[in-house]
Amino acid sequence: MPPITRREALKLASAASLTSLAPIAKNVRSTPRWEIFETTFEGPSTGNPFAEVTLTATFTLGHRAVSLEGFYDGAGQYRIRFMPDAEGSWYFTTQSNIPTLNGHTGAFLCTPPTSHGPVGVADTYHFAHADGTPFFPFGTTCYAWVHQPEKLQAETLATLKKSPFNKLRMCVFPKHYEYNHNEPTLFPFAGTPGHFDLTRPNPAFYAHLEQRLAGLRALHIEADLILFHPYDDPARWGFASMPPAADDAYLRYLLARLSCYRNLWWSVANEWDLMHSKKLADFDRFFHLIEQHDPHAHLRSIHHSGPIYDNSHPWVTHASLQVITFEKALEYRNAWHKPVCFDEIQYEGNLNKRWGNVSGDELTRRFWLCLIQGCYATHGETFLPEDATLDEATTPTIWWSHGGDLHGTSPAHIAFLQSLIQSPLTPSPDPYYLNATAFDTTGKPPRQILYFMDFHQPLWYEFPLPEGTYKAEALDIFAHTITPIPGTHSGKSRIRMPVKPYAALRFTRL
Amino acid sequence: MPPITRREALKLASAASLTSLAPIAKNVRSTPRWEIFETTFEGPSTGNPFAEVTLTATFTLGHRAVSLEGFYDGAGQYRIRFMPDAEGSWYFTTQSNIPTLNGHTGAFLCTPPTSHGPVGVADTYHFAHADGTPFFPFGTTCYAWVHQPEKLQAETLATLKKSPFNKLRMCVFPKHYEYNHNEPTLFPFAGTPGHFDLTRPNPAFYAHLEQRLAGLRALHIEADLILFHPYDDPARWGFASMPPAADDAYLRYLLARLSCYRNLWWSVANEWDLMHSKKLADFDRFFHLIEQHDPHAHLRSIHHSGPIYDNSHPWVTHASLQVITFEKALEYRNAWHKPVCFDEIQYEGNLNKRWGNVSGDELTRRFWLCLIQGCYATHGETFLPEDATLDEATTPTIWWSHGGDLHGTSPAHIAFLQSLIQSPLTPSPDPYYLNATAFDTTGKPPRQILYFMDFHQPLWYEFPLPEGTYKAEALDIFAHTITPIPGTHSGKSRIRMPVKPYAALRFTRL
Repeated sequence: MPPITRREALKLASAASLTSLAPIAKNVRSTPRWEIFETTFEGPSTGNPFAEVTLTATFTLGHRAVSLEGFYDGAGQYRIRFMPDAEGSWYFTTQSNIPTLNGHTGAFLCTPPTSHGPVGVADTYHFAHADGTPFFPFGTTCYAWVHQPEKLQAETLATLKKSPFNKLRMCVFPKHYEYNHNEPTLFPFAGTPGHFDLTRPNPAFYAHLEQRLAGLRALHIEADLILFHPYDDPARWGFASMPPAADDAYLRYLLARLSCYRNLWWSVANEWDLMHSKKLADFDRFFHLIEQHDPHAHLRSIHHSGPIYDNSHPWVTHASLQVITFEKALEYRNAWHKPVCFDEIQYEGNLNKRWGNVSGDELTRRFWLCLIQGCYATHGETFLPEDATLDEATTPTIWWSHGGDLHGTSPAHIAFLQSLIQSPLTPSPDPYYLNATAFDTTGKPPRQILYFMDFHQPLWYEFPLPEGTYKAEALDIFAHTITPIPGTHSGKSRIRMPVKPYAALRFTRL
Repeated sequence: MPPITRREALKLASAASLTSLAPIAKNVRSTPRWEIFETTFEGPSTGNPFAEVTLTATFTLGHRAVSLEGFYDGAGQYRIRFMPDAEGSWYFTTQSNIPTLNGHTGAFLCTPPTSHGPVGVADTYHFAHADGTPFFPFGTTCYAWVHQPEKLQAETLATLKKSPFNKLRMCVFPKHYEYNHNEPTLFPFAGTPGHFDLTRPNPAFYAHLEQRLAGLRALHIEADLILFHPYDDPARWGFASMPPAADDAYLRYLLARLSCYRNLWWSVANEWDLMHSKKLADFDRFFHLIEQHDPHAHLRSIHHSGPIYDNSHPWVTHASLQVITFEKALEYRNAWHKPVCFDEIQYEGNLNKRWGNVSGDELTRRFWLCLIQGCYATHGETFLPEDATLDEATTPTIWWSHGGDLHGTSPAHIAFLQSLIQSPLTPSPDPYYLNATAFDTTGKPPRQILYFMDFHQPLWYEFPLPEGTYKAEALDIFAHTITPIPGTHSGKSRIRMPVKPYAALRFTRL
C-alpha cells in the first residue's frame, strides 16, 4: 500500500481539526489492529540525518494521544511506524526540526484484528495476547541466527515452523564466542570491522532484521530480542563497550524502527553481569529509555549469568532467569509477583561445556519442573556433529547460536508437555506433601490437576483432590502416551502407581 | 576373663604408688588397644542405685590420667568400662560415695591392637581410624532395628555383612511413625508403656544394645547412634519429651556404658528441630555432657530436618546433613572446615512419601555428587512389598527402620563407587570448567583423578591434567565396568567421549 500523499494528509488534518471524533474518510487507507501502519516522508540526506534530524509523530484516537519517534532509513527517506492497539479512526501529526518534515498530518482506519495481538502479562504470573488468548511460552534459543548465511536463516525458519516453540531468544548484535567465529555480512552500523561509525545506523541491517521478525511473526513466534550482550570482539566490533551516548542512540533508533512488530519482547541484555564495561545503572537507564520510546509497551526483561537483576523494579515485566535448580521457583514468584521464565536451563547437546551438554531427558525433566511450579522454560540445543574436530575455533552449525536443524530428543517431549497445558498452571498449595503438582485454575474447583513425580516412584499415593469427581490418566512423558486409570476419584484418593521414575498423572473434573 | 580380685588390685595399687611407670606384673590381665577393659564390683542393690550411688574411676598411664564414670548394671553389680587408646601399663583407682565401692585399684596391660581403632576426623574434611587407616563412610540407615524381633535383627546383620555399608544410622529409642507401630520388647527404662520410671535405666535393654554394637563392630561397621529423636508416642513412651534431669541422667548412663565401644559415633539427635519440647540450648547441653563424659572422644554430630544446627561450634566434629541438592557442598566444607556427611539424601524405594521413593539410579547419582565434591553420603531404603495394602498403619519390614533384607539397585552401584575410593577425594579447584571432578591427593601430583559428568554428555572434553603422564579409563557407574581409553595423557588433554549421561572417568598417574 503506497504511503499517504502530502495532499491527502493535509486534507485529513484539516478535517481532523474540525471533527477529530468524526468517522474517517472512506478512501483513506486501513490497517488491522496490531499490524503496522507506516508512513514515509522525503527529507534531507546530507550531513548525518541520524544524528541531526529529529522526527516525532503524535497519533490520536478520540481523546487519546500516543507520541513516538520516526527514523531515517537512508536515501532521504524518513519513516514513522505505529502499531494501533484499538480500532477506529487514527490521526497523526509530525514534529521535526526540519521544516519539510514538520507538521505533516494524516489518518488511517484501524480495522478488526487478524491476529491475537502482542503478548503481555496476565494473571500476575502468566502471559496472554492482547485479545485475551493465553500465551504459554515454550521458547528456544538461536542467538546469532540473523547473522548467518541466508540459506541457513531460511532453514531455521523451516525448522521452527515444525517445532513446538513459540518464542525465540535472539540477539541484535553478532556473536563472538567459542564455535562462533564467522563474520556477518551486515552490521548495525555503517563502516567495516574495526572502523564502525557509531553515529550512523545501517538501514540495510535493520531492514534485514525486520524481515526476520516478520518471518517469525508469520509463524506465530515471539522474538525475545536481546539488545545487548557480552559476546563481542572489541578489535573487530566493540558493540559491547560503546560509549553511553552511542548505546542510547542505538536503542532509540532500534525502538523507533522495530517496536511496531507485535511479536517483540525486549530482553535488555543477555548475561548483563558479564558486560564489564557497563554498570548496573546503565541497564536501569536502558529500561527507562525503552519505557519512554516504545509506545507499544512490549514486555521487558533482563537476563543474568550470576547475580540476578532486581526483578522487583516496576519496569521489569517478568523474570528471565539462568538457574538450573528449581526449588526456589515458588520463592521467585512470591518475591516478584511476576511471570518467571527460566530462560537458560542449560542446553541439550554434546558440547565440551557444562551448559551445553545435558541429555534430552534431563532437559525435558527441567521443563516439567518449571511448568509444574507455574513458571516457564526455554529450550536450547548444542550438538556438535559426531565427526567434529576437538576444536572450539571452528564454526559448526549449532542450533543455540546459528539455527539450522534440531537433532535432540527434547523438542518432541516438550511438544507433548505443551499439548497438556491448556490453561495457566498454579503450583500446589502444599508442595511438600504433593510432590511436584500444579492445578489448572480455569474453574473452582479446578478443571484439571497435573502431577509430576520427578525421580519419585511411589507404589501408591494419596491424592488430596479438591471438591468434585475426577477421572485420572497416567502420562508417559517420554513415550507421550495417556493411559486412563480405571474408576473415578474424589476426596483423598489412594491410587496404586507404576514404580518408575518420571511418572506423571492428570486428573480431569467430570 | 575374670575381673581382677580385690586383693590383686590392692597389691597392684601399692606397687603403682611406688613405681607407677614400672612394668606391670606379669600375671595381670591384658586388653588389646581399642578393646574394652571392664571391671566389676559388688555394691548396694537397695534404694535406687542408679540415682543414689556415684562411681567414677581414674585410669593412668605414666603421667596421663583419664577419668570416667562407672554404672550400675542391676543385681548389685557395678561396672567400669574403659577403651585404652595406648599400649602400656594402665592403673586405675575408683571413687564412690559408697565405701565398699571407693578406693578400689587395679591394673591391666594394654597390648598391641587387633583392629584399626575408633574413627576420628583426619585431614580436616575426612575420617581415619586411630591407627591412621583412612575411613570412607558409606553409611546406611536402620533407625529402629534393635527394637525388632530377634530373628529380624540377625537377618539385618547378615544383610549388612554382604553389603558395602560400613556405617549404620540407628536410634537408641524405639520409633513411632508411619509404618512403625509395633511395640518393642525391651525399653531403656524400668516399667511398662505409659508407666516408665525415668530414674531407673533398664540394664537388660542396654545389654541387648551392647550385643548389637558388638555385632556391628565384628562386621567393621560404625554405629552412628542417634541419642534423641522426635518419632515418639507420648501416651506410650514419652522419650522425646522427658524433663532435662531425665535427659541428662539417660545420657550419662548411656555414656558410662557404651562409650567403650570403639565403633561408636554420637548423633545427638535426628531432626532435632522437630523435637518441639526441646530448645536449641538443650542440644548444646547434650553436646557438652558428651564432651565431659565420653573419655574416648567419639565423633559428635547432630542431624536436622529444616534449620541446620551451627556446625561451626567446636563441639561438633562433622556435619550430618539432610539436604538433597549438592551445589552448596563446597560452601559447607569451606564454612565449617569439617567433614560433611549428607546423611539423609532421601531413600531408594516406593513409599508414598517424597523422602522415601527415589529411584536407585537417582540415589546412586547423589552418592557420586557427594563423593566427587569431597563429601560423604548415607544410603537408606524404603520399599513396600508390591502387594502392600494402601495403608500407613501397617508395619511391613522396611530396611530404613526395621532392617531385614535389601531390595534396591543402589547398594551394588554404591559398592562399585566404594571400590574406586582408595584415598580422600578433594574437589577440583575449578568446578565450573571441570564439571564434577575430584582429585585423589595421595601425592603431588595426584595419583588418581576421578571425573563424574552427571547428566552432562560432552562429545569431547579438555581435561586439564596436572603434572605427569596418566592413563585414562571410562567407568560405567551402573554396569560397573572399567574400560581403558587408548593412549596416555598429559597436560590439557582432549578426549572424545561417549555421548551419554552419567559418564565417569578415572585418570591414573603412570
